[in-house]
Amino acid sequence: MQKELLSKPYLLSAEDLSVEDVNLIFDQARYFEYHYSLGANFTDLIGYTVALAFFEPSTRTRISFEIAVQRLGGKPILFSTATSSLTKGESLIDTLHTIEAMDVQIFVVRHSASGVPVLLQRNTSKMVINAGDGKHEHPTQALLDAYTIQKHFGYIKDLKICIVGDILHSRVARSNIILLKKFGAKVAFCGPGTLIPRHYSHWNLTTLKNIDEAIEWSDVIMLLRLQNERMDSGLVPSLAEFSNLYGLTFERISRKPELVVLHPGPVNYGIELDYEVPAYPNVLIQTQVSHGVFVRMALLSLLAKTYESRRR
Amino acid sequence: MQKELLSKPYLLSAEDLSVEDVNLIFDQARYFEYHYSLGANFTDLIGYTVALAFFEPSTRTRISFEIAVQRLGGKPILFSTATSSLTKGESLIDTLHTIEAMDVQIFVVRHSASGVPVLLQRNTSKMVINAGDGKHEHPTQALLDAYTIQKHFGYIKDLKICIVGDILHSRVARSNIILLKKFGAKVAFCGPGTLIPRHYSHWNLTTLKNIDEAIEWSDVIMLLRLQNERMDSGLVPSLAEFSNLYGLTFERISRKPELVVLHPGPVNYGIELDYEVPAYPNVLIQTQVSHGVFVRMALLSLLAKTYESRRR
Amino acid sequence: MQKELLSKPYLLSAEDLSVEDVNLIFDQARYFEYHYSLGANFTDLIGYTVALAFFEPSTRTRISFEIAVQRLGGKPILFSTATSSLTKGESLIDTLHTIEAMDVQIFVVRHSASGVPVLLQRNTSKMVINAGDGKHEHPTQALLDAYTIQKHFGYIKDLKICIVGDILHSRVARSNIILLKKFGAKVAFCGPGTLIPRHYSHWNLTTLKNIDEAIEWSDVIMLLRLQNERMDSGLVPSLAEFSNLYGLTFERISRKPELVVLHPGPVNYGIELDYEVPAYPNVLIQTQVSHGVFVRMALLSLLAKTYESRRR
Repeated sequence: MQKELLSKPYLLSAEDLSVEDVNLIFDQARYFEYHYSLGANFTDLIGYTVALAFFEPSTRTRISFEIAVQRLGGKPILFSTATSSLTKGESLIDTLHTIEAMDVQIFVVRHSASGVPVLLQRNTSKMVINAGDGKHEHPTQALLDAYTIQKHFGYIKDLKICIVGDILHSRVARSNIILLKKFGAKVAFCGPGTLIPRHYSHWNLTTLKNIDEAIEWSDVIMLLRLQNERMDSGLVPSLAEFSNLYGLTFERISRKPELVVLHPGPVNYGIELDYEVPAYPNVLIQTQVSHGVFVRMALLSLLAKTYESRRR
Repeated sequence: MQKELLSKPYLLSAEDLSVEDVNLIFDQARYFEYHYSLGANFTDLIGYTVALAFFEPSTRTRISFEIAVQRLGGKPILFSTATSSLTKGESLIDTLHTIEAMDVQIFVVRHSASGVPVLLQRNTSKMVINAGDGKHEHPTQALLDAYTIQKHFGYIKDLKICIVGDILHSRVARSNIILLKKFGAKVAFCGPGTLIPRHYSHWNLTTLKNIDEAIEWSDVIMLLRLQNERMDSGLVPSLAEFSNLYGLTFERISRKPELVVLHPGPVNYGIELDYEVPAYPNVLIQTQVSHGVFVRMALLSLLAKTYESRRR
Repeated sequence: MQKELLSKPYLLSAEDLSVEDVNLIFDQARYFEYHYSLGANFTDLIGYTVALAFFEPSTRTRISFEIAVQRLGGKPILFSTATSSLTKGESLIDTLHTIEAMDVQIFVVRHSASGVPVLLQRNTSKMVINAGDGKHEHPTQALLDAYTIQKHFGYIKDLKICIVGDILHSRVARSNIILLKKFGAKVAFCGPGTLIPRHYSHWNLTTLKNIDEAIEWSDVIMLLRLQNERMDSGLVPSLAEFSNLYGLTFERISRKPELVVLHPGPVNYGIELDYEVPAYPNVLIQTQVSHGVFVRMALLSLLAKTYESRRR
């Protein structure tokens, strides 16, 4: 019999997802992608209210979830610090309980502090989705990245995937490593020594010296955004040097046009990526965004089914 | 013949509600609560646009109204100072007239200045609901508190209800006293002398010395939030002293576990209430929040019917 | 055969609209206005997501578009700087591409910088509507103004229309002049020399000395908002003098009660207009706002049809 439910009724970390879970989400995402293109209407979340609790500014992730909820017939409720009673000192958990009592069934949470989604999930019987927490994880980004890779190659196993840039502070990198490893991809790092984590040794990851080595080695390059804070804090010697060693220039990609390039956005053009690079057809940054909506629709729909099956 | 409409097509103060109005709202709220639990869809506000004009930050009340409007099929339009043209110096009444001209039929208004909902209602032919104005009133909070008490005991008349804390500055207290008195409840105050109003003498309210007396006397304790401003302004000697005299500790509630405890939220844990207290089954803070959505659905639905009947 | 589509699948400037386009929009707006009053439901934008990208605070225009989208069955996505990743330095075009990749089909853009809607339209294959850009244009305001004039008189050609106030800095004035000229109206200016543009000479516009001359000459007076910045910058000698020469007082309008008065709002009462003036039935400020929703519904519906016809 086919597996139809997820292992867990929440998503806090890529660790929560088994390979079967991910395949189930991908099947459902492909279903939504295809039927949406035919003009179908979906009803998976009719009667559901979804709190989009974004305590950190976000465009793409917030709008991606908001559109996903709307396309499934659900009702999004936006909830950000600007309009929240957190200005009255209400604690996070107390706020969660309050909104929960209004029969909000799903909480999509972004927070600048690592661990907030875990804290909330432990304090609620409702569904919690981590939409990015501090430097910890961003599992739906990893899902949409993997979906994009899988659609491009037809498989993930044994692909050589190099993550380039500030891996140490990146929730995107962390979630991707976990997920890609589960699928048997070969993952490498490339970035300044100050921005490479030391405690990943148990994963036996390859480290590549610079972007040229990375291009040569990889089937897929996953660029990360270099946060301005890193430059200010002295972890990067200078933008020019960073860009010189780790930036994907037009000249560099021209040497290997079949290389697949991903970036979670927003891009620092001129730093990790040159303006002209997205002209290459295998630079899939826009595709990632499109996939993001379908992958999140699939996750929301499957989570709701999993949750309901456990209440019966 | 059964009464089916409210006395007034607006709600600015608990004074606007007759006992019959409140009973009608409670019947309708019970109807919504029951049929919602069965998965029913409601259409009472289809074709209605409801402006949620929150000029003061709010989580629970704004989201409660937003969910109530959505569940009835209406369209909420959020309107807060952050995104409003009030930054261009547009006057409140002018803004009201502008939005009114777009055929927005219901205005839910929160404002830090007492009297704003009254001012708006006098300048519009549309429906206005006071969602909390300064230190004046918060009538939908009083409705949901009374609904919670009524559901618990089956009646309100002759119940002993003590409001504890900063009564002087509380719009919640003011609306509750008005409403509870109409139902024949026995209302008492308990709080520091500096935070007890003097001009309530015509209501013949009991004053209780401290939380211990309040617990002994009461069937229901209604705790209020102690605003930080009060401590800064010297109206409260010290937090420790306030908490000592008026805080509901675990030890204190253990002496009378049948006591019903209400709080409009957000709670200052450790000040008016200990963290462990909500574990008691008769601490109905979460229940109040759940009821709030149904009571507001009932109010919105009945106001709309009342308003339409007057236009014919 | 009747024209059923617009010339262009976007609206950046009043220049984009032919007389036939405007007549088509007005027919459709009348259709919506009539059928809305009968309680009809519209489905023109079902399946459409419309980004309301307001990078400048706005009440009336944002809410007008939001209600228009909702009434047509579309899904509005609010997007303002407060909650946007522009705080992460994401460029405007990059943000546009991101949201576009989520299959958002219509972008309604307001920005304090002139030219932003043009910039975005050149970088997307989706529909862009200018909802006001800097001191450049505000074409939907001109459309609703012309619709209001047309409904009142039955025609626009040869009407004498005087724009009063700060014409130099006004996007509303610019869009109106372009549109009214296309319909053969006689347009005049009236305002301090420092606030009258010099480069309009090719339009052969009349200039009137003061409000009294303007009233005498005009069938329609179009007042503009005097921005506070103008006073601070020394372009206006004093508020009293401005108001004395160009303000529409009750005494002045009493001399010609048939005069039609428009204002895009928000009004500076006591400066360009006296508080008592809107009591006159031909002061159509509220009517403009009501019309705005229907004109925007018509524009959105026709743009979507035009866009779809080009994709086939």
